[in-house]
Amino acid sequence: MHIEVICTGDEVLTGKIVNSNFSYMAQKLEDYGFPVRWGVTVGDDRADLLEAFRQAGERAGVVIVNGGLGPTVDDLSQQVAAEAAGVGLELHEGWLAHMRDFFEGRGRTMPENNIKQAMLPVGAEMIDNPVGTACGFAVTIGQARFYFTPGVPRELRRMLEQEIIPRLLEKSGGGQGVIRLKRFHSFGLGESHVDSLLQGLEDMVPDGSLKLGFRAHYPQLETKLTMRGATEEEIAAKLAPVIEEVRNRLGNFIMAEDDETLEGVVVSQLAGRGGTLAVVENFSGGLVAARIIALPESGDVMVRGAVMPRMEELMDILYTGERPPGGEGQLTNETAETAAQTVRTQYGATHGLAVLVDLTDGGHGAPGGANPTANPTANPTANPTANPTGGNLDGNICIGIATEDATVSRRSRLLGNRDWVRLGAVEMGLDTLRRHLMGLPLKEKIDFERAAPN
Amino acid sequence: MHIEVICTGDEVLTGKIVNSNFSYMAQKLEDYGFPVRWGVTVGDDRADLLEAFRQAGERAGVVIVNGGLGPTVDDLSQQVAAEAAGVGLELHEGWLAHMRDFFEGRGRTMPENNIKQAMLPVGAEMIDNPVGTACGFAVTIGQARFYFTPGVPRELRRMLEQEIIPRLLEKSGGGQGVIRLKRFHSFGLGESHVDSLLQGLEDMVPDGSLKLGFRAHYPQLETKLTMRGATEEEIAAKLAPVIEEVRNRLGNFIMAEDDETLEGVVVSQLAGRGGTLAVVENFSGGLVAARIIALPESGDVMVRGAVMPRMEELMDILYTGERPPGGEGQLTNETAETAAQTVRTQYGATHGLAVLVDLTDGGHGAPGGANPTANPTANPTANPTANPTGGNLDGNICIGIATEDATVSRRSRLLGNRDWVRLGAVEMGLDTLRRHLMGLPLKEKIDFERAAPN
Repeated sequence: MHIEVICTGDEVLTGKIVNSNFSYMAQKLEDYGFPVRWGVTVGDDRADLLEAFRQAGERAGVVIVNGGLGPTVDDLSQQVAAEAAGVGLELHEGWLAHMRDFFEGRGRTMPENNIKQAMLPVGAEMIDNPVGTACGFAVTIGQARFYFTPGVPRELRRMLEQEIIPRLLEKSGGGQGVIRLKRFHSFGLGESHVDSLLQGLEDMVPDGSLKLGFRAHYPQLETKLTMRGATEEEIAAKLAPVIEEVRNRLGNFIMAEDDETLEGVVVSQLAGRGGTLAVVENFSGGLVAARIIALPESGDVMVRGAVMPRMEELMDILYTGERPPGGEGQLTNETAETAAQTVRTQYGATHGLAVLVDLTDGGHGAPGGANPTANPTANPTANPTANPTGGNLDGNICIGIATEDATVSRRSRLLGNRDWVRLGAVEMGLDTLRRHLMGLPLKEKIDFERAAPN
Repeated sequence: MHIEVICTGDEVLTGKIVNSNFSYMAQKLEDYGFPVRWGVTVGDDRADLLEAFRQAGERAGVVIVNGGLGPTVDDLSQQVAAEAAGVGLELHEGWLAHMRDFFEGRGRTMPENNIKQAMLPVGAEMIDNPVGTACGFAVTIGQARFYFTPGVPRELRRMLEQEIIPRLLEKSGGGQGVIRLKRFHSFGLGESHVDSLLQGLEDMVPDGSLKLGFRAHYPQLETKLTMRGATEEEIAAKLAPVIEEVRNRLGNFIMAEDDETLEGVVVSQLAGRGGTLAVVENFSGGLVAARIIALPESGDVMVRGAVMPRMEELMDILYTGERPPGGEGQLTNETAETAAQTVRTQYGATHGLAVLVDLTDGGHGAPGGANPTANPTANPTANPTANPTGGNLDGNICIGIATEDATVSRRSRLLGNRDWVRLGAVEMGLDTLRRHLMGLPLKEKIDFERAAPN
């Protein structure tokens, strides 16, 4: 099925907002076996919208249009859709009544200009929006079925996943029935490495109903399995051995699955044993603590964080007497263990975590720096946001974990710019704690680091 | 001038990476008076690229193509450009020599497949890339001049700003000469409020050469002035009174200008007086400290941060004896001042900053929550990333600042979801410190808050 996406609106066209609706739609549609072939972005301009609709209607079988369903005069989607379909607009009484209820439920009277949102092209199929006043609709223009969706991300998501994708699945052959997506989140293995580890996985399901995909967003990688089948039971039966195989092959690198997050796993592991956490960090400046505290359920677990950017002061606090060998102010495994134990006892937590970095000038060839073959496709972890290019730095990262019984540590080197090292250190700190809490080895080498961990 | 942008590559089309290159290009081009009219996204597919080039060549005067210049077989831009222009490819000896030098300078030998990057359509104008191996080029297809740019963000930026925009300015009429962009960053005023405060501003320059624009990214708003003129001197003379007028009308809400940032202003204000900073925060979990510590120049200023998510423990530490009136564990101005003074003296800084929040359930109608008229265009601060919708919470925010001589505080209420309140609190904390350091009033009411500050 040839699928196109048309994003409308001056805010998107002028770059005032980054078009994350497009990447969301493209990913979600691909997850369900509907890769997007062509994307268009146009402003709130009647002639351009009309041309975009007509062109897509000639090329595609399905078109998703996003935006332009609001109550104001610059929202033109219904009107231009009607024009492109060669019909007029008519009031959808059901949606109008629904909107009036929506406002009344909030103690307000519906403004008259909202009536516009219930005016749909004659013959259009209304598509419910349970969380907003912009209903979606479907019409046929040219040879394509057009689905119109609201620009508000929450409303779009709900409508795409609950209303439109089921229609596409039915359209693409009701016999195929159900589709399920299974996701694994890992840290430390690049996309091409995971791809080679999972070689032959799709062949485990000879009927071709399994598809493997990836999404790299440094420092994490998401591995996605998409499985089609006639029923939920059939899918579950076919998928179970594949899931086990992925878990076996990626092993301890899988930090979380589906909607779980690394920090969520850490918090639930701690909460499960009545544990509490104190954190000390320097270069990451509070980002380790912030990842934990952002979770509403962290309240019982997170005791306190210390942000100590000055190496001198950190050392003063850790070593009142003699400092360990390795030079003045040089981070070692011992420093990290001492730091973790210090915050644990001082703040009265069951677990202490230290994420400490010292940064020196690096050489050429680091992932975040100048790279003669740099190319977003060639570099499995490339991401314009996560890995902005810049100077090369050499990050000496020491992670320490302390409990009442013992202290452990892991040391690593990451080369790259400040953001690259910072994000890597935060992830490594949380992942090392996860591994400790789950009784897994702490020192498995990751693809991003230089030299084996120690 | 009708301008179009074509983004190429499977990673963008499938949503694996969010297309921030598009929003960057659209903004930058608009800043220089070249609004983008139409955007297309296609994958690494020869037929689709060819169709996209041909369609744009019929519609547009200028087309910017991004991506597809790499050394691998799926990078098709040169080849398809040549086909669309009806010419062959030829080796650009100068660029090949440049690439060989590039690799040699890094102690490496150029792989043979990089030769592909020096193969340009016959007659193309080569465009320099001083930071990578993918040169750009310009060719004419249909009625449009096409500019081909690399997908690596750093390389794209350099090429667009230093090579392509000057060519567009010349193309659009050498007489217009120069263009300058002036930016103001504010916190606390919504876009429509600033728009009304700046009513009539464009009329200050009767020749029509001044354009006013905005970019809202909660909690900040960027106000942009674009000025054209024959020479730099002419622009400076015309712009000076306008800049003064904007400063007068927006007053203390302007936190930073051009490439300055709020945290950068805070750090330079402190550094300028030999000051140092200690921070205590609860709900923001370390994000206030992290904003400061992310700046390389914060080393001399930032002493230490305390992250104390537990209200009970915070109160224990602040009040060893009797607690202030207002109820057990209720945040007040006094709490914030005491907290700021405590970290200041305890950590030995000249300045202490406390950013404290307590969160309770809110009602309907908050900006981050259900909003019957929610619409990205209608809401000046709407941003799919910054304001993900969710439950409504009522954030009681207390900011305290302590120096050796005095303590001051500001209190506010923000309604919204967790992210909305958190981002607002971090911004307000840093902005209140900026105001204090610059001798400005702390308690000017902002558009986001409920009730006047106290």
